[in-house]
Amino acid sequence: MNQVITIGREFGSGGKELARKLADEMGFAYYDDEIVNEIVKRTNFSEDYIHMIVEKRPVLYHPFHAGVRFFSHADPHVERSQQIASAQYAIIHEMAEKSPCVVVGRCADYILRENTPYRIFVCSDMESKMRRYRADEDPNDRISDKELFRQIRRVNKDRAQYYHLYTGLRWGDRENYELCINTSHMDIDAAVPHIAELARTFFATATGQESGEEA
Amino acid sequence: MNQVITIGREFGSGGKELARKLADEMGFAYYDDEIVNEIVKRTNFSEDYIHMIVEKRPVLYHPFHAGVRFFSHADPHVERSQQIASAQYAIIHEMAEKSPCVVVGRCADYILRENTPYRIFVCSDMESKMRRYRADEDPNDRISDKELFRQIRRVNKDRAQYYHLYTGLRWGDRENYELCINTSHMDIDAAVPHIAELARTFFATATGQESGEEA
Repeated sequence: MNQVITIGREFGSGGKELARKLADEMGFAYYDDEIVNEIVKRTNFSEDYIHMIVEKRPVLYHPFHAGVRFFSHADPHVERSQQIASAQYAIIHEMAEKSPCVVVGRCADYILRENTPYRIFVCSDMESKMRRYRADEDPNDRISDKELFRQIRRVNKDRAQYYHLYTGLRWGDRENYELCINTSHMDIDAAVPHIAELARTFFATATGQESGEEA
Repeated sequence: MNQVITIGREFGSGGKELARKLADEMGFAYYDDEIVNEIVKRTNFSEDYIHMIVEKRPVLYHPFHAGVRFFSHADPHVERSQQIASAQYAIIHEMAEKSPCVVVGRCADYILRENTPYRIFVCSDMESKMRRYRADEDPNDRISDKELFRQIRRVNKDRAQYYHLYTGLRWGDRENYELCINTSHMDIDAAVPHIAELARTFFATATGQESGEEA
């Protein structure tokens, strides 16, 4: 089974940057927007619609953790949500089967739990999130601090709800990850090689434990 | 100001072992039971009584985070709790002033927040906690799985309450730490050098930020 690193991340925490650099450091494939692009291809829904569904308004009658579909239904919004969730589930599994990889968000830690992924969660304080957002902001689209604060909080609330809906677990809860990293006072470039080393020792131990059980 | 690493830890997570090895790796002083021993010397209370107060039944009318004492009181239990808390507060500050150090538990992350400590929280799943406890257990004092489960849960509940009472914050909440480490599938010996490297990059960044602000 391929080694997999999953990265849950708060909006504004730099989790995406950390994930990309960690994939480079490990020599792993990197999957983030690639997942949505692949859903677009398979379902014929627009990218915006998929983002809306997978990040904001998922409606599911059989989330990943329930295992069974309780009843059939005719609501087209629910049907489409379900179609997208199923595509996402299949795509993430296919990606992990292809090669070692880093997968960002999308409940990959839960979807790939049989692979014993190295599960990272990236967070930071609000001040740091706002600073990070401002650094990349288009000056023509500048929003007020109050609006930015609200937007960051809203996106992260959506992510938490989405994660809970699909997995039944609490997003960002230390129990569900090998490592929770706070980037508020962290130099991501300097830290990534050491995070990679921690992932390597994890994979060495996990493999060792599996061999031990077989012996 | 000396570099300080604080380690909050769930009972049974191996946090103490990790802390000791990290102190060795960094060449830092290590403080854990030393704090209680020092309180014994300064207050004349017994070690058992201090453990009971600081870990199980603290009663405070002015916790560390409140800043002021609201009224005087005559309850001797409260007076003694307060005396122990004040001694602990002073001792932890003195230790951090003496040399770079690793401090285990006792709200040191909060008490020393002005020092910008590298704050680590160590957790693990219940199965791993029970396995770890059994490995060190005296065969003559063996307790049932049910009793062990209860004991682990009780100690960790006490720690969470104690931390919340003194700091007003949630114990083990990712926001309050630089790093939350799950030891369930971790080889502590193999991981410690890389955790030390992460702490060093943090201190380099924190120092850099302070110089930057002064410039």
